[in-house]
Amino acid sequence: MPGPVSRRYEKLADEMDQAIGEGLLRPGERLPSVRVTCQHHGISPSTVFQAYGLLEARGLIEARPRSGYYVLARKKPARALPLQAPIRAEATEVAVSALAFDLLESTRDAAVVPLGSAFPAPHLFPFEALARSGARAMRRLKPAQITGALTVGDAGLRQTLRKRYALQGVPLAEDELVITNGAMEALNLCLQAVTQPGDVVVVESPTFYAALQALERLKLKAVEVPTDPQHGVDLDALGELLGRQRVAACWFMPTLQNPLGALMPRARKQALVELLARHGVPLIEDDVYGELYVDVRRPPSAKAFDQAGGVLHCSSFSKCLAPGYRVGWAAAGRFSPAVRRLKMMSSLATALPPQLAIADYLGQGGYERHLRQLRTALAAEQQRARRLIERHFPAGTRVTRPAGGYFVWLELPAGVEALALHHQAMSLGISTAPGVLFSADRRFVHHMRLNLGHPGDARIDDALRRLGGLASELASAAA
Amino acid sequence: MPGPVSRRYEKLADEMDQAIGEGLLRPGERLPSVRVTCQHHGISPSTVFQAYGLLEARGLIEARPRSGYYVLARKKPARALPLQAPIRAEATEVAVSALAFDLLESTRDAAVVPLGSAFPAPHLFPFEALARSGARAMRRLKPAQITGALTVGDAGLRQTLRKRYALQGVPLAEDELVITNGAMEALNLCLQAVTQPGDVVVVESPTFYAALQALERLKLKAVEVPTDPQHGVDLDALGELLGRQRVAACWFMPTLQNPLGALMPRARKQALVELLARHGVPLIEDDVYGELYVDVRRPPSAKAFDQAGGVLHCSSFSKCLAPGYRVGWAAAGRFSPAVRRLKMMSSLATALPPQLAIADYLGQGGYERHLRQLRTALAAEQQRARRLIERHFPAGTRVTRPAGGYFVWLELPAGVEALALHHQAMSLGISTAPGVLFSADRRFVHHMRLNLGHPGDARIDDALRRLGGLASELASAAA
Repeated sequence: MPGPVSRRYEKLADEMDQAIGEGLLRPGERLPSVRVTCQHHGISPSTVFQAYGLLEARGLIEARPRSGYYVLARKKPARALPLQAPIRAEATEVAVSALAFDLLESTRDAAVVPLGSAFPAPHLFPFEALARSGARAMRRLKPAQITGALTVGDAGLRQTLRKRYALQGVPLAEDELVITNGAMEALNLCLQAVTQPGDVVVVESPTFYAALQALERLKLKAVEVPTDPQHGVDLDALGELLGRQRVAACWFMPTLQNPLGALMPRARKQALVELLARHGVPLIEDDVYGELYVDVRRPPSAKAFDQAGGVLHCSSFSKCLAPGYRVGWAAAGRFSPAVRRLKMMSSLATALPPQLAIADYLGQGGYERHLRQLRTALAAEQQRARRLIERHFPAGTRVTRPAGGYFVWLELPAGVEALALHHQAMSLGISTAPGVLFSADRRFVHHMRLNLGHPGDARIDDALRRLGGLASELASAAA
Repeated sequence: MPGPVSRRYEKLADEMDQAIGEGLLRPGERLPSVRVTCQHHGISPSTVFQAYGLLEARGLIEARPRSGYYVLARKKPARALPLQAPIRAEATEVAVSALAFDLLESTRDAAVVPLGSAFPAPHLFPFEALARSGARAMRRLKPAQITGALTVGDAGLRQTLRKRYALQGVPLAEDELVITNGAMEALNLCLQAVTQPGDVVVVESPTFYAALQALERLKLKAVEVPTDPQHGVDLDALGELLGRQRVAACWFMPTLQNPLGALMPRARKQALVELLARHGVPLIEDDVYGELYVDVRRPPSAKAFDQAGGVLHCSSFSKCLAPGYRVGWAAAGRFSPAVRRLKMMSSLATALPPQLAIADYLGQGGYERHLRQLRTALAAEQQRARRLIERHFPAGTRVTRPAGGYFVWLELPAGVEALALHHQAMSLGISTAPGVLFSADRRFVHHMRLNLGHPGDARIDDALRRLGGLASELASAAA
């Protein structure tokens, strides 16, 4: 979690952010050179670069090669954001196609350029340090830890997590945390804890396809609510829906939503939690991207506003520290006992070695530094790759500018079917995640999610160029 | 798997087994002393002790303190086995009480003597070697392994398992194996792959409570079929049942059933698989105790007789190598694609570090030696603890003599309620697993399962003595 005191580069970035906001630095204006800024503030070049990187990641400035940094029009990205989806009136039976499975299979193939993958590049994560931590922890293993960790997970890891949440202003009850086999298991257990087959669950539109698959597996119905690419779920539409029909739960991702990257502002998160509490509807909060924010401080989770124990908060280390370790958790509020029982019934316990490795790693004190490096690397790559998209994709393409994470969501010109583009790209060894995956009734036919979480992968530039070329051809053919 | 050539002590045991079978050594007769046998066969004392231990574990001889080894009446244990449960005509909705959860909680408490636990003592397992293997494997980790192992599991581990099955005469299809979060997840995925809510599933009687919990979670109905403590499921009763009503699946443990320890003979396993194939009913085979046999060779799994792809075979390393690592698997026959999809939908992938640790360990070549030591230790402890039970429990108590594993199943005299005994024992810090846990409709009120898998735990003897004392008091009060 961020310390109470801002670091120097953050302070500088905040000052310049304010100056831009007040019009002291205007759109199109060139920022003072790094050398001048160093002299002016008495700081090192690396601090200035970090500050400029942060401002770039916030979408306030852009770097122009061999020229310097320039102020962008505030909150007006170069290309407009995709339109918000219209509200849906009826619940639909969920049946996400085999497409999601095919996409996962393509992710397993290292020869395929992973623009469609859900995972960032493994080289971004401290696997060597984790291996050392794992070796140390397993040498120290006491037999009683094995049975002690049954169902709920390792006591030390749970204690560390609880402290971390407390420092973020989210007090968890003593027994609230259950360690799970990744966030995916946590979300599935929480979903089952609050639903019966046939129930209606509200999801975002577009929504993460795994949510749709979980609904399909539990024989639930989805209602999709419009979701703004910047501010998340449309609360008016949600309120209207809750007044109209019985809803068993909402499954939302209020922080850096997949695929939009939407970040609900603090006040909207609070309003969401209060709205759901009034209707007695539990919120399953998928917070797996919560640590991948661009800004200086961690955005609060919806759980932070939970007074009634109605928020079932789920997260994991898979996206921010240890992919493949499958260490996730649920803090399920008043549904914790039900989640614990379901965990026992369905998978009994979570593997201990990865839990102990991560607990040891967290105890070594390098986690915050790793997270800062990860955020910076992802933000820089997003900037870089977005410029390529803007250069190579056909006119009329719209692209999100998310405040973190590693996805962008594209809306292609009306004539371009993203699924056709996907199949063409796959034949070139490039995966994409076509928009039809992100809705129960195959909306978003002109949309796709691209994974920009692979900095340093030399194939990305060419893949984006070729993908843009294919899209342009499809657009021309349709015109 | 056992090598093609018997070891020396097994050869000696087999010779004496034959001699007893042919009446050359008669019940009550004292075996030649260890010293004499050494001289006679030109072998070491430890070989003779191992041979006698094996014969003891087979229930053919017994050791009498300061006297020697004596031949027992063949296939007639000192106390008769519990009676077979009567057949049930109707399916029952499953609702296993919170008792199972309480029992698990007590297992987490190291201060409680774990006679009710489902897990053997951790010191029986090679955690240090596994830690070394894990450290080695994680140092060698290649980033592509992480995405490569998505959903189905690590390729190297799956290949090793497939070879192991092939050597046991069980050819698995190339893509049949899915690595899971322990056998529990495998069983749950398989159950969901072949059922719809409301379906009827046949289980053994008594059956493992986790099977009942899985049925409860998926809103299925249980029909219990009589199960013989030695030979397993009553095939006549099962055949009659299948002719009478629609059954979605059977969930059986044909090898060393929990709680009875029943071991279906080879011919009965084959007949079971054929019977179910004729009715088109899938068999979910829980084989987690398959490696814990007492005899010289591994009993075949039901999967070995599967011609139609109807056996969904599930197992894990949790009981035989690495508790807490949560590495299990499903080989789900023609249902494999469905199981793979459900795995993706529910937990995405299994943690990689424990898989790689076990794969490395298996490659080091010490597994067979570990298994032999484990089997010997468990068999010796079962003999030892059963003598204590026979000494301290009230007259009329019946106890199983399983051919492996680490459970015994007791039938107490008619006046003794096992649940009352359980609560009394818990107040003394001793857990038991009362019989009501092992049936959907709380049969087996006079029964209990005891865990004899804790050799070397100094508390066991006293706990068995006190438990027997409590049972005797309840029996006297009832008389």
